[in-house]
Amino acid sequence: MTTPTSASVPAPVTPRAVHRFLTEHDPPTPCLVVDIATVVDRYRGLAAAFPDTRVQYAVKANPEPAVLRALAREGAWFDVASPVEIDLCLDAGADGARLSYGNTVKKPADIAHAHSAGVAEYTCEADSDLDNIAAHAPGAQVSARLLTDAPASVTPFGRKFGCAPTQAARLLVRAAELGLDPVGVSVHVGSQQLDLTAWDPAVAAAAEVFAATAVRGLRLRRINVGGGLGTSYRDAAPTPADYARAIRAAVDHHFPTGAPELVVEPGRAVVAEAGVIRAEVVLVTRKAPDDEHRWVYLDIGRYNGLAETENEAIAYHLEPVPRDGDHSGARTDDANGPVIIAGPTCDGDDVLYLHTPYRLPESLRAGDRVDILATGAYTASYSSVAFNGIPPLPVHCINGHDIDGQSDEGGATRGD
Amino acid sequence: MTTPTSASVPAPVTPRAVHRFLTEHDPPTPCLVVDIATVVDRYRGLAAAFPDTRVQYAVKANPEPAVLRALAREGAWFDVASPVEIDLCLDAGADGARLSYGNTVKKPADIAHAHSAGVAEYTCEADSDLDNIAAHAPGAQVSARLLTDAPASVTPFGRKFGCAPTQAARLLVRAAELGLDPVGVSVHVGSQQLDLTAWDPAVAAAAEVFAATAVRGLRLRRINVGGGLGTSYRDAAPTPADYARAIRAAVDHHFPTGAPELVVEPGRAVVAEAGVIRAEVVLVTRKAPDDEHRWVYLDIGRYNGLAETENEAIAYHLEPVPRDGDHSGARTDDANGPVIIAGPTCDGDDVLYLHTPYRLPESLRAGDRVDILATGAYTASYSSVAFNGIPPLPVHCINGHDIDGQSDEGGATRGD
Repeated sequence: MTTPTSASVPAPVTPRAVHRFLTEHDPPTPCLVVDIATVVDRYRGLAAAFPDTRVQYAVKANPEPAVLRALAREGAWFDVASPVEIDLCLDAGADGARLSYGNTVKKPADIAHAHSAGVAEYTCEADSDLDNIAAHAPGAQVSARLLTDAPASVTPFGRKFGCAPTQAARLLVRAAELGLDPVGVSVHVGSQQLDLTAWDPAVAAAAEVFAATAVRGLRLRRINVGGGLGTSYRDAAPTPADYARAIRAAVDHHFPTGAPELVVEPGRAVVAEAGVIRAEVVLVTRKAPDDEHRWVYLDIGRYNGLAETENEAIAYHLEPVPRDGDHSGARTDDANGPVIIAGPTCDGDDVLYLHTPYRLPESLRAGDRVDILATGAYTASYSSVAFNGIPPLPVHCINGHDIDGQSDEGGATRGD
Repeated sequence: MTTPTSASVPAPVTPRAVHRFLTEHDPPTPCLVVDIATVVDRYRGLAAAFPDTRVQYAVKANPEPAVLRALAREGAWFDVASPVEIDLCLDAGADGARLSYGNTVKKPADIAHAHSAGVAEYTCEADSDLDNIAAHAPGAQVSARLLTDAPASVTPFGRKFGCAPTQAARLLVRAAELGLDPVGVSVHVGSQQLDLTAWDPAVAAAAEVFAATAVRGLRLRRINVGGGLGTSYRDAAPTPADYARAIRAAVDHHFPTGAPELVVEPGRAVVAEAGVIRAEVVLVTRKAPDDEHRWVYLDIGRYNGLAETENEAIAYHLEPVPRDGDHSGARTDDANGPVIIAGPTCDGDDVLYLHTPYRLPESLRAGDRVDILATGAYTASYSSVAFNGIPPLPVHCINGHDIDGQSDEGGATRGD
């Protein structure tokens, strides 16, 4: 056990198919291996936990074609943020009518592209964007994004997205005047939101907008409660059923006369646990002979896949890989000692964990490998093009269901 | 004036050739335009300010082939951090014997690659790396990287690189025993270091290592004083002559019996002022009608080029571009009002300036363009592969000297 979890927290596990792939193929490091069967399993679990709710996958979490194809086959909806994400979904077999353009920052050409792709719904928070939607996606469904004060999530939005309820109500009334179809309100309480009470104030603000538009004769019908569903990394996240119960309770409470349609937008909760990054230890050293901490430098860092270690926001679970035929080496039952973990670039910010206490085997040495678990979300897509000449993180998508036979996804790679 | 500079600080200017290129070609935004003539001019200025000093360009600052070709023609040395950076330099016409492998984090295969490319010199801070250098680059020149406590730079290294002087001395003695050529010590006081006193303690620590090895019969001959030479963004940076004087004074003070060879490693100071990013305003909005600040969303943000706005470390100078034929628009002499500036992705951290006070014209609206000055360093190479489906920053390298005729660099693009 190398991650600073409490005893009661279940550590993430490597999907069996990923373990087998890594053992059989021993791919060059670093790389991300994603098990599509696990993605599908997590999607189905969410769909079951959220009955009568549209489950809309946040493409940004992992836009791998194999991931999108599997989710399209499952009938998922997709939250898209740009023309490229739209095209990725269409190429994966998704129907444009199941795409929702959730980014409030879009150019007129982006909207026209989305409209020509048949995108059903657009989120907005400002008049100029609303005008552009009316001009380039006439008749489209429109939601207003609400600025809500949520308890701090692990990676909060701050005030970047959304507007005040009064402004949202005004925009939705104007949308109707412009010939658009104002469907409702969208909120987001911050990614990796571990506080189940976060949704209540957001749904309350949504109810305000429903009431304010109703008195102007506009009947809204939908709330998009956003993403934020967490993954168990260092701290345990609630289960999908826990999230569903909390969100449903907030909706029932603030809409006593009848709940609107619900949309939920998981990204991390669908793909994180399906992925494992295998990395190599490049250097282990003490800066001075009497230093307590060793510095461990990996071949992966903030700029080639671990962007969410910024400010040590996400503390991943690390697992040393036993050396082939040398079990005196970096085994998990070795004595562990404190380490600071850093990435391979010449950038001083490319330090993964300086303050978060990590321990790794005293026997760890250059050339050893470590697996970084639950890394299927927000990793490869953040890679830099080649900062310091270090290439983006290669991705191998495999399919646990097919791995004994011939997998159509097996060994597909990107970025190398 | 839209950047919060004091009156005495000269704002960066757009190189004339870049201005002309943007006017004539009106390229799609966002994009970075780099004037190679300005790069050469800044390199020559540094070489003149640092006589009898090896000027070694830090490739990571901007690895564009046109930049590297121009500097190779000037006879520059190159600080490289990975096999890809080595190959880029060789492809640009640089001699392997003028490359210095400055990254202390390298795999055995990286060292072998460097050795086969003829790389002259390797920096190390740990025994295992030294063993690898001895094995894969026999006889190579080796410097030890020293951990030094420098005054805070704008983007400090913390303690990521380098070891204590005692350890450095021990490594260099061992290097000689391993048949390597221990040449000296390398230090780095942090990028964008505006405090001229930063180098004195670093050079003092280097002198300690020289003394500690001398008593063991080893005569070191070189100090690499690193980079850190600043660019005037929000705060004025010292001139190259100022830096050279301060560094020379530190060396003369700590090496009274004779100065060793000097190496300086500028990156930012060579390329920053040569580049301008042209961006488009995608959305201007108030979150509530009575908000003082407008939010201005650009089509460039932290994940497609402006990585150094993390924690608002670098406050770039922004210049609104007058609208074609509509001078009632976003002109610099319009009344300015306070703004918060954000990027185009759905990521809550993709906010450029929330705390740093920026003002932009009240008339600014979606579709207007802004130029972001002195952005030739640490921008395009940090771009993500496609977070949120937003492509990496395209780069156009032009050559101001040739622009009236036929430029061999003109219109060269990358990333689109």
